[in-house]
Amino acid sequence: MCQLLGMNCNVPTDICFSFTGFQQRGGGTDHHKDGWGIAFFEGRGVRQFLDSKASIHSPVAEFIKAYPIHSTNVVAHIRRATQGAVKLENTHPFMRELWGHYWIFAHNGNIPDFQPYLDGSFLPVGSTDSELAFCWILQEFKKRFGNVMPEKTVLFDTLAELATEAGRHGEFNFLFSNGDVLFAHCSMKLTYIVRKAPFPMARLKDRDVTVDFTTVTTSQDRVAIIATAPLTDNETWEVIDPGTLLLFQDGQVQDVRKTIVGHKVTTMNVP
Amino acid sequence: MCQLLGMNCNVPTDICFSFTGFQQRGGGTDHHKDGWGIAFFEGRGVRQFLDSKASIHSPVAEFIKAYPIHSTNVVAHIRRATQGAVKLENTHPFMRELWGHYWIFAHNGNIPDFQPYLDGSFLPVGSTDSELAFCWILQEFKKRFGNVMPEKTVLFDTLAELATEAGRHGEFNFLFSNGDVLFAHCSMKLTYIVRKAPFPMARLKDRDVTVDFTTVTTSQDRVAIIATAPLTDNETWEVIDPGTLLLFQDGQVQDVRKTIVGHKVTTMNVP
Repeated sequence: MCQLLGMNCNVPTDICFSFTGFQQRGGGTDHHKDGWGIAFFEGRGVRQFLDSKASIHSPVAEFIKAYPIHSTNVVAHIRRATQGAVKLENTHPFMRELWGHYWIFAHNGNIPDFQPYLDGSFLPVGSTDSELAFCWILQEFKKRFGNVMPEKTVLFDTLAELATEAGRHGEFNFLFSNGDVLFAHCSMKLTYIVRKAPFPMARLKDRDVTVDFTTVTTSQDRVAIIATAPLTDNETWEVIDPGTLLLFQDGQVQDVRKTIVGHKVTTMNVP
Repeated sequence: MCQLLGMNCNVPTDICFSFTGFQQRGGGTDHHKDGWGIAFFEGRGVRQFLDSKASIHSPVAEFIKAYPIHSTNVVAHIRRATQGAVKLENTHPFMRELWGHYWIFAHNGNIPDFQPYLDGSFLPVGSTDSELAFCWILQEFKKRFGNVMPEKTVLFDTLAELATEAGRHGEFNFLFSNGDVLFAHCSMKLTYIVRKAPFPMARLKDRDVTVDFTTVTTSQDRVAIIATAPLTDNETWEVIDPGTLLLFQDGQVQDVRKTIVGHKVTTMNVP
C-alpha cells in the first residue's frame, strides 16, 4: 500500500523536518518505493512535485528536503503500487480544478472493485483506483452543488457520505485539500499530532534528526501533522478511529464525522 | 510581457541547455522577473515546476537547469506581469485535464478585453487573461466534441479558429500541448529551430555556454525548440509569420494554419 503525510497550519510553515523522516519510508526504512509526490498550496496556487522514482533515491526529494517551502496546506504520498503501473501518471497526489480552486488528493489503501460511473467532468489520466475515486468525488460535488462551492460544513457532510460509499469497497484512507481546509479520512490507519506552544523537541523515528521547534516558531503558531504512522518517537500522536473523517483548519481539528470502517482487501502487487 | 520556450522531440530529450539560456532572461539578460514555470510530459503524466520568484534567483530553476528530465513535450514560461499580481496562481504554464489527458498552456501577450462566457467546466484559479483564455479553449473543445477527443487535425482546425477569435483582442502567442502534439501560435513574435543529424555545435546567446549535440544524440533524433526569441547566436532560427498556428509532432512541423495577426495592445504593469 502507501503512506500519507499531510500538514495543516495557521501560518505558512515548512515541512522539511517531517518530510526528512517520511522520505526514508520510500525505499529506506520501509518498502513504499514506487514513486512519491508532494503538493504545497501557496495562496490559491499549488506547487506539485512528483517522481516515479523511490523517494530515497529521488533528486527531487533531496531538493524538497533541503528547500523550505512555506505553506498552510501540504499533502504528500509515497507509493507502493497496488493498482496501476509505476509511472508518473499514477503518482499521488493528484490535482484537479473545481469552482476556480485547485483540489489535491492522495490515497492509501485499495478499493479494487469500486467502479463508479464517470460522466466526463473529471477523468483519470492514469490507471489507479485512487485517481478514479478522486475524479468521482469531484464529479459528485459538482453534480450536487453546480457552479458554486458550498460552505465547508456542507462539503464535509457530503465528503463523509462519499467516503462511506467508496469505503464499502476496501480501504480508503485519504488526504484531500483545497488550500483552505484539509480533510483527512481514516478508513483503517491514520494518526495526527497538533503542535503548539510550548513547542517540544521532536525526534524523528526514521532518521537520527532532532529539532527544537521553539527556535523556529512563535507562541501563536499551530501546526497539525497527519501521517499513516507517527513520524517522531518522543511525542504522543493521536490514533484516529477507523471510520472517521476529520476537518483540519488553522492547524487544528475543527469537525469530525463518522463514516464506514474500510474493509481489509487483499492487495495485488503490480509487476 | 513574457517569453515562451517549448520543446517537441521524437525521443525523450532533456532541455537543460536551452533552459540555461532561457533562465537568464528572467531577471538577468532581460526583465521577465515576475515568476516562471516549466512542465514536462512523461508518458501521460506531467511534472510541473512553478515559482513566483524571478528564474534568475529561483532555487527551483537552478535545480531544473542541473537535473536532466527527459521528455518529448516541454512548455516553459518566464513572466513579466501585465494582468494579475505576481503570485503562484498567476504563474504559467497552467494545467487542466480534459478527456483523460493533461493539457498544458503558456501565453505571451496581452488580451485585456477578452471576456468570454465560462460555463464552469474550467474556471481560472488566478486572475490572468492567459488562464482565462486557456479555460475558454478547453471549454470550447468540450462543447464541440463532448467526451471523446477528436483527431489531431480536427483539434488543430478548431484551435486555429479559437486563436483567431481570442487574437482579435490583442497579442496571443501561446504554446499548448497534450503530451502527444505541441501547438505553437504566433500572433506577433515566435521563432523555432529543428535540430537533427548532422547535429551542430550550438552557442547560447544569454550565457557563455556551448554544446556539441553530436555527443548526446543519435542520428535518428529530431528536436524542435520553439522560443519567443532565438536562444543561440550561431544557428539559423525560423521566424514564424504573425498569424500562424503550427502543429509540432515527433520533432518537426506537421501542419500549418493561418489565424489572425494579433493586435498590439499597450501593456499595463501590475504593481
